[in-house]
Amino acid sequence: MANPVLPSSGVLSPLGLDAVRISPGFWGDRAALNREVTIAHCQEWMERTGWIGNFRGQRPRRGREFSDSEIYKLLEAMAWADHPALPELAETVARAQEGDGYLNTRWSGSRYTDLEWGHELYCYGHLIQAGVARLRTHGEDTLTRTAVRAADHVCRRFMEGTQTDGHPVIEMALVELYRVTGAERYLEMARRFVARRGLPSLGEIHLGRAYFQDDVPVRQAQAFRGHAVRALYLACGAVDVAVETGDEELLKAVESQWERTVARRTHLTGGMGSRHAGESFGDDYELPPDRAYSETCAGIASIMLSHRLLLATGDARYADLAERTLHNVLATGVALDGRSFSYVNPLAVRVPAETPDGMVSHAAEGGPRSPWFDVSCCPSNIARTLASVAAYVATSSGDGVRIDQYTPSEISHGGLRLRVETGYPWTGTVRVRVLEGGAGRISLRVPVWASSATLTSSPGESRAVAPGYAGAEREWRPGDELVLELPMEPRWTYPDRRVDALRGCVAVERGPLVYCAEAAGDEPPLAEVAVRPGSALTERTGGEVVELETEAVLGASAASAWPYGSAPDGWHGSHGAGPGAALRLIPYHRWGNRGPATMRVWLPVAGEPSG
Amino acid sequence: MANPVLPSSGVLSPLGLDAVRISPGFWGDRAALNREVTIAHCQEWMERTGWIGNFRGQRPRRGREFSDSEIYKLLEAMAWADHPALPELAETVARAQEGDGYLNTRWSGSRYTDLEWGHELYCYGHLIQAGVARLRTHGEDTLTRTAVRAADHVCRRFMEGTQTDGHPVIEMALVELYRVTGAERYLEMARRFVARRGLPSLGEIHLGRAYFQDDVPVRQAQAFRGHAVRALYLACGAVDVAVETGDEELLKAVESQWERTVARRTHLTGGMGSRHAGESFGDDYELPPDRAYSETCAGIASIMLSHRLLLATGDARYADLAERTLHNVLATGVALDGRSFSYVNPLAVRVPAETPDGMVSHAAEGGPRSPWFDVSCCPSNIARTLASVAAYVATSSGDGVRIDQYTPSEISHGGLRLRVETGYPWTGTVRVRVLEGGAGRISLRVPVWASSATLTSSPGESRAVAPGYAGAEREWRPGDELVLELPMEPRWTYPDRRVDALRGCVAVERGPLVYCAEAAGDEPPLAEVAVRPGSALTERTGGEVVELETEAVLGASAASAWPYGSAPDGWHGSHGAGPGAALRLIPYHRWGNRGPATMRVWLPVAGEPSG
Repeated sequence: MANPVLPSSGVLSPLGLDAVRISPGFWGDRAALNREVTIAHCQEWMERTGWIGNFRGQRPRRGREFSDSEIYKLLEAMAWADHPALPELAETVARAQEGDGYLNTRWSGSRYTDLEWGHELYCYGHLIQAGVARLRTHGEDTLTRTAVRAADHVCRRFMEGTQTDGHPVIEMALVELYRVTGAERYLEMARRFVARRGLPSLGEIHLGRAYFQDDVPVRQAQAFRGHAVRALYLACGAVDVAVETGDEELLKAVESQWERTVARRTHLTGGMGSRHAGESFGDDYELPPDRAYSETCAGIASIMLSHRLLLATGDARYADLAERTLHNVLATGVALDGRSFSYVNPLAVRVPAETPDGMVSHAAEGGPRSPWFDVSCCPSNIARTLASVAAYVATSSGDGVRIDQYTPSEISHGGLRLRVETGYPWTGTVRVRVLEGGAGRISLRVPVWASSATLTSSPGESRAVAPGYAGAEREWRPGDELVLELPMEPRWTYPDRRVDALRGCVAVERGPLVYCAEAAGDEPPLAEVAVRPGSALTERTGGEVVELETEAVLGASAASAWPYGSAPDGWHGSHGAGPGAALRLIPYHRWGNRGPATMRVWLPVAGEPSG
Repeated sequence: MANPVLPSSGVLSPLGLDAVRISPGFWGDRAALNREVTIAHCQEWMERTGWIGNFRGQRPRRGREFSDSEIYKLLEAMAWADHPALPELAETVARAQEGDGYLNTRWSGSRYTDLEWGHELYCYGHLIQAGVARLRTHGEDTLTRTAVRAADHVCRRFMEGTQTDGHPVIEMALVELYRVTGAERYLEMARRFVARRGLPSLGEIHLGRAYFQDDVPVRQAQAFRGHAVRALYLACGAVDVAVETGDEELLKAVESQWERTVARRTHLTGGMGSRHAGESFGDDYELPPDRAYSETCAGIASIMLSHRLLLATGDARYADLAERTLHNVLATGVALDGRSFSYVNPLAVRVPAETPDGMVSHAAEGGPRSPWFDVSCCPSNIARTLASVAAYVATSSGDGVRIDQYTPSEISHGGLRLRVETGYPWTGTVRVRVLEGGAGRISLRVPVWASSATLTSSPGESRAVAPGYAGAEREWRPGDELVLELPMEPRWTYPDRRVDALRGCVAVERGPLVYCAEAAGDEPPLAEVAVRPGSALTERTGGEVVELETEAVLGASAASAWPYGSAPDGWHGSHGAGPGAALRLIPYHRWGNRGPATMRVWLPVAGEPSG
């Protein structure tokens, strides 16, 4: 079966990508653009930067120490998308592999001398994930043989001892290779890698051991910490190991870390990572909107983790977070033309930044999207995720089908064939039409934000449904319908008072989407705008996209020599009725598509400042 | 004359360190502790880490590429303090100098191959500053000859061409060497280094050219930006060059950058630097309390700059910022025992951190003070600054004496001898007693925060004085007195509404001191505390130190799975009357002297959140 994650046990089981066909719509359009534009764009840039040339023996080698992994993530994307460029690229990679399975274009002469920063096992991890994707969509070929040889090399070299890699990902890759091949050594190797971390296993680094989660063993940690992508990939691997080895304690440990991280270390968008320094999580409630790191790759890693926890436990909270992160991080990470990408995803930008004209962006400062980066982990990560995004749509619950994410699609399982019709996330009606009948339960996720959803499971039989899963079990016949109505009124959202960086601000959400104000070009900047929560949020639809408008209070700050004074400095501008006081809000994932702009998700509340 | 900065022109002239003797008191005690404890502490650590050993030819070399500069800053401290360890340490340094004056323990074999990061000219800058200090306090000796040979080498090597150094400091050092020797080549070399920067002069780096101010020429920049210490040292050099060459345009450019930086990029403490990434300034109004970088060295550099601008212009605003930064950054940077130091000075700490037990702190995360650092620029910078802190106390205005900073001291100038008696910053009375008489004006600075100060210049003649300078001119006789009374009522201070990170918060100040709440050991943490600005701030004096107490509102947050919700989350706890609701506030510079603690300068305002 074709799916990136196929656990042998769990409350829910994935469906194959062939069993979930997404049609034109929010995710279908993005998957198509990815297949048609983004994958080729990535390959072009990997040629231009010489990162593919490294596999052809080019000297001097070009790119950072982990650039091989970008080619592997692209190969994974190509595998899921059945892209015609895969075989030739896989041959190029295979020719660089050494006789014993070792494969790295940089470290060949000094293997494993710098596990902290060398990224050799990290690169294998992505190669193996590409190989697994190819095995599940196509069967054995050059790519899969290369991946298996690398995995066998890793098992021979690392099974004994205490070593692990500075950047996790090999763990989940090896578990998946075990799942597809049945070879237990891969699972055992993954189990050991997870168990070694935090004993500690790696050397001291300037950023401290928490950076690569080597400060505390996985099963003893309290929350995700350190480098966000590393932390989340490690957690994915730990869940995979826990599920395959029946290690309930390990699974519970990761669930509890997820819970604390979501409650205290996650941005409204679902984005994770609060610090540019170390690309890391911050302390509890350290969630600055302007310096939010919220790396696109961390969002993807979080979706991967939530999906694994959903499969293991069936708990809707994991699908809820995945929905938030899919719509507000993954969708934000790629421009509408599929050719530029965000590395960091701040929730506020004060100074409009030009698109880097040197084409390769050196710094991940969170300005406009860039066609490529020095450290270009995000574009190929987006590509592989969009190529397999159907994996998140539906699952099997043993007694039937669960629909977890809403986008136009067709779902087949156990004789049932369903068509999901919806304008989601713009409209709230999700219609599930039975195309081919059969017995079983059809469940739909009621998102946690949907406080007044209704489900019509037989004509005329409508009932209120609470967040979680709701559905009906019966012998379904062609033409039967389930209709979920989700409340799509825009909502004012307030932060927990302990989030210092958001005090006195509100945000606007609608359905699964976070909204933001954007000022591009010669529009008035956002530094002087405040809002009155509770004010009307008027929908303005242009095409499919729903934009919102609300009344804003415009300040007019006098020049001041010192930004601290003896009197409160609130927004007391005229409560405008003119057009200048109307504030347009756009879906956050669409910001930055009109050139240099300032942007704010969190808007100050008009009036006197208070707690 | 002995003073770190001796411009040949300017509205004010410095007094020699021998003309200003500080007595026991706030700064006198710190200067004494520095001379008796901190200087030796630094030398011990420089031996222990091998940084002095590098000058003895130790292999392998130890420490970072700029570690030589620490020995030079220590030598400067020793010179100002007339410390007996200077001659031997200076000999050790001198023996490492090459025949042509080149001196660097790391780059010898590959001179000037990495000006972006090599720090060779930066190290010379500190060596020359040490040499200048020695020339002015002692006269020619091994140290001064070493410094002059290095300076001459720099002039020969760099006078022609377009090169400059990735880390400014050489500029101001060369101007001072010109001032003490009269050799114009040093001034010309400094002028060229300042003029070359931003053309650009240096290569591309990952952090971008703004990091080392090579993005825009000095005279065209709008504000200080990039690495804060680099930016401020460069500005010092630019002022020095402008003053000596009569370049009014350059001086005005730096004044205007100072003005914008103070209005929009400076923490309440006077600290500068908003980002850990790149140790840099942020955008305008980006002033996070928790992630404030506010490096101790940047505070010192800011004091150095403000002092130069005060001398050049006589404008009290520069002395005001210097006062703020002296009391809230420099004084914070060293523990009460003189043996540990802060590198970064955040205005909020959520998680108590242990003092690093490995002794050398790798990360500058802003937890407790540390006895030493991997990058240990701050301890020796504090040492040289405290050893010469008398330089900031008073200046000559041509027609008399200006007293800029208040601490018990004796000041001699032009026949006048004055004794300053004060308990400042704890008490607001500054009594200037004439010990030896003479004609002239005696002026006292009325700080910008002192809205109701009075000056008594003759018995019974008291008048209100506005911020700025106030005083009297006459023929002074022994026994005459001037008494300045500064209002020491604690003040509630509000942030500009554009400072997003401080919205809904207030701070407390008293005199020049910023206050904070600190929770050490088993005291209740600060995450649930809010205040009502306007509430009484009661003084509680323990010894000399004035602490404050106010009523606090204690929250009691329920566990929540997601830190964003549909209702405002304000502080509505009982408005406590019991002891648990009394919040103690201590001077910010004293925080972290009781072991691991949480701390907040900015306190949430109780009530509903609003702008």
